[in-house]
Amino acid sequence: MSKSTKVTIQDVARLAGVGVGTVSRVLNGHPNVSADAEASVRRAIEESGYRPVAAAQTLRSRRSNIIGFITDEIATSPHAGQIMRGAQETAWKGGKILFLVNTQWDPELERSAVETMIDRQVDGLIYATMFHRAATPPQAIRQIPSVLLDCFVEDASLASVVPNEADGGYQATTYLIEHGHRRIGYINHVEDIPAQRLRLQGYRSALEAHGIPFDAELVVERYSEPKGGYDGMMTLLNLPNPPSAVFCFNDRSAMGAYDAIRQRGLRIPQDIAVIGFDNQELIAANLYPGLTTMQLPHYEMGIWAVEYLLSELDAVGKDEAAAERSPPQVLLKCPLVVRDSV
Amino acid sequence: MSKSTKVTIQDVARLAGVGVGTVSRVLNGHPNVSADAEASVRRAIEESGYRPVAAAQTLRSRRSNIIGFITDEIATSPHAGQIMRGAQETAWKGGKILFLVNTQWDPELERSAVETMIDRQVDGLIYATMFHRAATPPQAIRQIPSVLLDCFVEDASLASVVPNEADGGYQATTYLIEHGHRRIGYINHVEDIPAQRLRLQGYRSALEAHGIPFDAELVVERYSEPKGGYDGMMTLLNLPNPPSAVFCFNDRSAMGAYDAIRQRGLRIPQDIAVIGFDNQELIAANLYPGLTTMQLPHYEMGIWAVEYLLSELDAVGKDEAAAERSPPQVLLKCPLVVRDSV
Repeated sequence: MSKSTKVTIQDVARLAGVGVGTVSRVLNGHPNVSADAEASVRRAIEESGYRPVAAAQTLRSRRSNIIGFITDEIATSPHAGQIMRGAQETAWKGGKILFLVNTQWDPELERSAVETMIDRQVDGLIYATMFHRAATPPQAIRQIPSVLLDCFVEDASLASVVPNEADGGYQATTYLIEHGHRRIGYINHVEDIPAQRLRLQGYRSALEAHGIPFDAELVVERYSEPKGGYDGMMTLLNLPNPPSAVFCFNDRSAMGAYDAIRQRGLRIPQDIAVIGFDNQELIAANLYPGLTTMQLPHYEMGIWAVEYLLSELDAVGKDEAAAERSPPQVLLKCPLVVRDSV
Repeated sequence: MSKSTKVTIQDVARLAGVGVGTVSRVLNGHPNVSADAEASVRRAIEESGYRPVAAAQTLRSRRSNIIGFITDEIATSPHAGQIMRGAQETAWKGGKILFLVNTQWDPELERSAVETMIDRQVDGLIYATMFHRAATPPQAIRQIPSVLLDCFVEDASLASVVPNEADGGYQATTYLIEHGHRRIGYINHVEDIPAQRLRLQGYRSALEAHGIPFDAELVVERYSEPKGGYDGMMTLLNLPNPPSAVFCFNDRSAMGAYDAIRQRGLRIPQDIAVIGFDNQELIAANLYPGLTTMQLPHYEMGIWAVEYLLSELDAVGKDEAAAERSPPQVLLKCPLVVRDSV
């Protein structure tokens, strides 16, 4: 490679006084760039000696600059919109547009959507689920660069990014322990999904790391809705030796736990501390007192998935033997969001 | 027209033992139909003498069977997912797939998305907003069949479907009056948006229709979030002659009103009745007691918009002088959802 490849697209953007997205759109022959901006970019490319990756240039005419985004129900559910947001913003910065199809769990629509996307020559595909789970995406997604978002295939044959649930459970429980609690309840979900298994695993590891014996009586399983949280909390409060703090599988169960605690005339956090999971703003930020919770890295997973796809697209035609690498299986951290409930 | 046009696509579907969507996909040369299903449909067409609209057949090769769906933030916000759901389901029944772009209010992305959609030969475009408002969609959407969803252009030059806000306010207030209340507070939003003006108008009309004089003291304006609802409710409770019922601009303000009422040691609905607006399930169904509220017709608007587009597509090439009709400006009713707060 010649030396001039060290000039980056960022340098060109700075020189031209435009965003990186605009440079990318000019390079890719995207129609929607003003004549002025295009002229500045072309000047900046000449002056800087910038040379975009040859493979990318060769492929230019075959690029649609569209990334397909297939999901079960991210667009229609109130739970995971930030996945779409992180992905869309990152795509647009790279001069690409996300076309989303929300299949509402219809497998025929899902297959058809993937095929239509490939027919329309999308550059790559994101297959995203509303909650962390094992998935069986249509075979066709393997025909083009693809990545799984908030899901994975059991044999790890497709790149994937999911939340680190076990670490989240560990952090949540540790935060309660650090606030002096040793008798900590856990209102878990009932269905066997990764979050259900892994958050419990994190809860147990944290107890163990702090020399607190596990007490099975303190773990209850309920549907992770307000009603389940209410009911689970009542069960814990009825124990001869009730907990002084409770970790809830998600913010919706915490919402119900709040009601149970209030109904008993107890105060949060003075009488009982509560920590949630998900950081579902509509609930967590709006409860009184505000709910301390673990944030799902929705936005970050969206960014990661698109950045991964863009790097795969860049690598096409390079001698990196991409096909021989194992697809990455990435876990992203769930950060603690402190409010007033612990 | 020949007599055989009276055989409908539904008849063909019934005869073939498949869904209408499958028939439509066969007619439109959609790839994703099993050989068996295609054979049954072709047999049923022959037997029934069904003749699809000629124009649609002629245009077949130019149809992508994709409907573009451009939105400010429906996919990323937790508020209006049912719009997407109604639209997607209706499109799919008609053998079409919705491609959504969520622009997060970025006008450059919005323009580019519309142009990319048109480049990719979508059959029609839906321009949808997260809340009911006047909109200024990119000019380019006028090049192909388009419809505005949950928004409108001031000059009514594009077809539009929005909620009937005034009727919703009227119904909510009337429901409280019918439950014996005559001193009814209204916690309105502060920004000048259609819902703000029109729900107040409905509130006033209902009072007037029932011979109750309007009392300006009973109407407070706050940001329509829990904090605003809490604060507005406190203001009303501090009146020398406080209301016995309160209509809240939305479910989020009602959530805050609940906290204020509880903090005063009052009971809902025995001491004070509460009615919301939006039927945002995550809140309305999960509050204790469940919140009685007006439902936004999100799902129905999604259906209406796609059905309108499909009928426009059917009309292409017919002698209906479509261009000379005024684009419909449709208001859909907000139904009352009764729970336990009144």
